[in-house]
Amino acid sequence: MSNVSAAPELLASNKCFDGWLKRYQHTSSATGTEMVFAIFLPPQAQTQPVPVLYWLSGLTCTDENFMQKAGAQRLAAELGIAIVAPDTSPRGTDLPGEHDSYDFGSGAGFYVNATQAPWSDNYRMYDYVVEELPALIEQHFPVTDKRAISGHSMGGHGALICALKNPGRYASVSAFAPISNPSNCPWGEKALSGYLGDDREAWKAWDSCELIARAEEKLPLLVDQGEADNFLAEQLKPDALQAACSAAEHPLELRLQPGYDHSYFFIASFIEDHLRHHARALLID
Amino acid sequence: MSNVSAAPELLASNKCFDGWLKRYQHTSSATGTEMVFAIFLPPQAQTQPVPVLYWLSGLTCTDENFMQKAGAQRLAAELGIAIVAPDTSPRGTDLPGEHDSYDFGSGAGFYVNATQAPWSDNYRMYDYVVEELPALIEQHFPVTDKRAISGHSMGGHGALICALKNPGRYASVSAFAPISNPSNCPWGEKALSGYLGDDREAWKAWDSCELIARAEEKLPLLVDQGEADNFLAEQLKPDALQAACSAAEHPLELRLQPGYDHSYFFIASFIEDHLRHHARALLID
Repeated sequence: MSNVSAAPELLASNKCFDGWLKRYQHTSSATGTEMVFAIFLPPQAQTQPVPVLYWLSGLTCTDENFMQKAGAQRLAAELGIAIVAPDTSPRGTDLPGEHDSYDFGSGAGFYVNATQAPWSDNYRMYDYVVEELPALIEQHFPVTDKRAISGHSMGGHGALICALKNPGRYASVSAFAPISNPSNCPWGEKALSGYLGDDREAWKAWDSCELIARAEEKLPLLVDQGEADNFLAEQLKPDALQAACSAAEHPLELRLQPGYDHSYFFIASFIEDHLRHHARALLID
Repeated sequence: MSNVSAAPELLASNKCFDGWLKRYQHTSSATGTEMVFAIFLPPQAQTQPVPVLYWLSGLTCTDENFMQKAGAQRLAAELGIAIVAPDTSPRGTDLPGEHDSYDFGSGAGFYVNATQAPWSDNYRMYDYVVEELPALIEQHFPVTDKRAISGHSMGGHGALICALKNPGRYASVSAFAPISNPSNCPWGEKALSGYLGDDREAWKAWDSCELIARAEEKLPLLVDQGEADNFLAEQLKPDALQAACSAAEHPLELRLQPGYDHSYFFIASFIEDHLRHHARALLID
């Protein structure tokens, strides 16, 4: 492999369901910063390489939320799937306004490559998540190059765009309450204008609904959405996702879950279905 | 029922595994303060009363840690068991030194009834957990009077003493990494001397190892302890628990778990075994 990366530095290690949850720090060339990620290695990884599910978290989150709250390790340990959770933005920079709001800047990288100053040097979470992190994981950990991707809210948007923009790179994709149409919601418009500028044409490369219209690969989308989610109508727009999939004949299983909200209690309730969805794609020889 | 209590005030509600996780606040007569607790009601509670597992958390925790991190709701929803998690101390008071350390005062009530000033008016977590909270739960929620109790670290100590001091009150008991012999460890000596005074005779009523020696009821104890737990030798003393049980012929299943630490990742890994242990006792008609 030509892109040899330095081994990441171990920060913490917890045994969990007979596997190991580990947090690492490394210097990212994509973001130009130190980045922290978490990896859960199931017990099977002690004797053979295992496939990897990448989990992208939502606004305000770090690598820790999913690993602490989703309860995914139990079934991942049973199925033999590693889970990698990156942070949601660069850290340690102190750009003007970076820490002023929960939905832009730190904790809110939106999984794009920023083109606008002062963000474009560091806010390159798309390159980090799609290229740099998997290359590092596949070099330094006992994993295969079979990859799946999922995420929540901003991270659901991230999972969908990463899969839609990279045919063949992911065996499967799913999302919880994704920001489906960021070009047309307040969170997305704030992020895309800030990171990419005011030309809405440039936003289309980072919007699932736009990407579905021209997807080369019809990778089936599994999406869970709580019907009692406070952000449903204004920010998440599952109707737009459904319309885009219908128009493009893109396979979508959109499950509206009555009574469920935007919290990790919602994610925990349905993570098993998502893990089994990914296992069906990842564990085929 | 003669002890009618005012209905607690609902603070938050999340659907979870087809049941409901709810947080409530109420005025406690035991502590003289407002107290917050969480209750998970499994889906079965919508049609019939269900038994209750009380969970006591450790130092620094609130009602939230277990519900967010242990992953217990999945199986509790399947088995039809409610879970109640109280806070770990009174809040809202501002006693001298109350907030100075993580292992005494706020967040560290130790599940005793304090006898020493200035603690004795409020730090009555034993009465709260054993008497007041179950009475309130059984009056206002669709539950039976079948109770089990479990907890972690300081809360493991709490679970053991509550069960040992109250024959017949709990159908089953278990603990994760309990402070087994608080009279003989730094955490326990600090707490018991602070809340109860310097007379070590008075401590014996709050020490599992002492209580086992004179237990009227031989309720089997299930205890999990991680072998990589940083607090094992100095604070937790599973050997003392084992010796006390051996001497008194008290049934103890002490499981030393290689590689596991003191974290909620350890609890999550084994909570299923504990829930099944409690279900065997709670779900007998």
